[in-house]
Amino acid sequence: MTELKNDRLLRALARQPVDRTPVWMMRQAGRYLPEYRATRAKAGDFLSLCKNTPLACEVTLQPLERYPLDAAILFSDILTIPDALGLGLYFETGEGPKFRNTVRSAADVDALPTLKADVDLDYVMNAVSTIRGALNGSVPLIGFSGSPWTLATYMIEGGSSKDFREAKKLMYGQPEAMHRLLDHLADSVIDYLNSQIRAGAQAVQIFDTWGGVLTGWAYEEFSLRYMKKIVAGLIRESDGRHVPAILFTKNGGQWLESIAESGADAVGLDWTTDIGHARQRVGDKVALQGNMDPAMLFAPPERIREEVADILARYGTGSGHIFNLGHGITPDVDPEHAGAFIRAVTELSPAYHRED
Amino acid sequence: MTELKNDRLLRALARQPVDRTPVWMMRQAGRYLPEYRATRAKAGDFLSLCKNTPLACEVTLQPLERYPLDAAILFSDILTIPDALGLGLYFETGEGPKFRNTVRSAADVDALPTLKADVDLDYVMNAVSTIRGALNGSVPLIGFSGSPWTLATYMIEGGSSKDFREAKKLMYGQPEAMHRLLDHLADSVIDYLNSQIRAGAQAVQIFDTWGGVLTGWAYEEFSLRYMKKIVAGLIRESDGRHVPAILFTKNGGQWLESIAESGADAVGLDWTTDIGHARQRVGDKVALQGNMDPAMLFAPPERIREEVADILARYGTGSGHIFNLGHGITPDVDPEHAGAFIRAVTELSPAYHRED
Repeated sequence: MTELKNDRLLRALARQPVDRTPVWMMRQAGRYLPEYRATRAKAGDFLSLCKNTPLACEVTLQPLERYPLDAAILFSDILTIPDALGLGLYFETGEGPKFRNTVRSAADVDALPTLKADVDLDYVMNAVSTIRGALNGSVPLIGFSGSPWTLATYMIEGGSSKDFREAKKLMYGQPEAMHRLLDHLADSVIDYLNSQIRAGAQAVQIFDTWGGVLTGWAYEEFSLRYMKKIVAGLIRESDGRHVPAILFTKNGGQWLESIAESGADAVGLDWTTDIGHARQRVGDKVALQGNMDPAMLFAPPERIREEVADILARYGTGSGHIFNLGHGITPDVDPEHAGAFIRAVTELSPAYHRED
Repeated sequence: MTELKNDRLLRALARQPVDRTPVWMMRQAGRYLPEYRATRAKAGDFLSLCKNTPLACEVTLQPLERYPLDAAILFSDILTIPDALGLGLYFETGEGPKFRNTVRSAADVDALPTLKADVDLDYVMNAVSTIRGALNGSVPLIGFSGSPWTLATYMIEGGSSKDFREAKKLMYGQPEAMHRLLDHLADSVIDYLNSQIRAGAQAVQIFDTWGGVLTGWAYEEFSLRYMKKIVAGLIRESDGRHVPAILFTKNGGQWLESIAESGADAVGLDWTTDIGHARQRVGDKVALQGNMDPAMLFAPPERIREEVADILARYGTGSGHIFNLGHGITPDVDPEHAGAFIRAVTELSPAYHRED
């Protein structure tokens, strides 16, 4: 394999010394970039873009051409697994993802097929290997999946939800059926992420977008438990290097100690958590990724720079911080503001990594 | 004044002994009740119902006729103040609240009139005094307001928001203008709540629905700071009794220690926070209100009862707990399930209040 030229991300995830804090942005290949919108127009809809290997590769690389980012992340969707399980994912303009079929009963759960990621999601693996080749060792490639709980909410509700009432009805009223669904999804995610790792992913992130709508005990029992199972089932070495796993639970700030015990290498923080307090709480157990408010990118560039300085100071000296937004970048952000954010990290962070 | 027959709420808010844990539900006068829907159909739209004194009184009392609740809460909306400030509140079917005018610049902020709650919101004060009379001392009446930050988000965005980008643009880009707006709103809320207290409210709650979308430092600076100002400005005695203040910040679980230092008598918890941990964190500073997941009311009644038992056990023995949902009751809940919830609290909680 080609040697990895920039391994800041992998080193920071392992809490090894780095020259500066690595930085990438969730949803960095996205609608805020005019070049993304141009490619997407060629592909047609969002899912067609995910399934078109050369174009998915093209949009993955676009932000790296603009900014000195320290990682690429596979261009795909968190809901590819339920789609492959036969639920029929589609997107309506101006609305979130939807499924043609839903899973609402124990019988629906038991009728779900077994995922064979290499076959059923071959377009994802093609994208991973193509992107990995195109990166040519410049930066590592992050693979990803939705968490079992998050996938389950969409599968049960049939799309986004305000109150997750159908998912919670199943969880509170038929917990055994919910556990069977989550266990099936955990197995599917293990297969999916391991296929991505075999295809070339050098780190993986699990997006638990909706773990934060649960009570503390239900988060442990219905979300974190299955993310732990996934982490325990991952291939953890590739090309002689450890393949780190990052868990990101939006609104999970109250449960950091538990998440840090999951076996993952890093915990992703949304912007509501003070990263300095988070570091005190998790100690040396994990690296921390995050966590600027994505809405800060609507502020003037000098204000963005101040905020980057503040977050760096809150984290403090030493490795173990991967700078990111606290959530995906918002579509209407000015690319110049994203550039100011990334430049500020590259310029201001070396001071926190000097060996004295 | 008529003597208060059931003062469990006021006693629990003061952490004085009670025979059982008091219980009420946020949005207890609401669409889940068929009798509410019938009254609302007579009134026309939601705002007309708020402004119709006899009908607002009627819907406030409806849940008390069905259930052994320990408090009534004024039937009104959190956005009455911006409406009175000239923004033009309206509701479109199936959507959240909207404003005809928005406040987006320093000039817009400085052009806002000064609220005279007794005059500009006389319909609220008429409702308060009418309800208080109709209650005839059976249970205390809770008045309420939105928090300055929450009011500001609606005023700036012109309605609900997914990412609060306009509010955050003003906050991050022109913090002085945002502070002037929030200070103006804090003064307005003080006037509004004091008018409610003079009209008969025996406790007040401040709803900070959107404080949880802020970073930790911004929550302190742009939301909590102004709620503290309000608490400090409230009339704190009426009819010879203390008028307690409850602060409820949705998704505020990470900041409980700070909220408990606000001068408020109680902190409202959403369902994501473990009420036992919360009690450890705030110690004897405040009472705690909450916090069953509102979606639990879609589960079978025996499951609801188990959850009530669990929350009571987590809080533990002694006073200082006001049972509630962690958010407003959902419109499609079966009233029988709400009844099972309230009955479980009344039946299971006395064991936690025995003096040995």
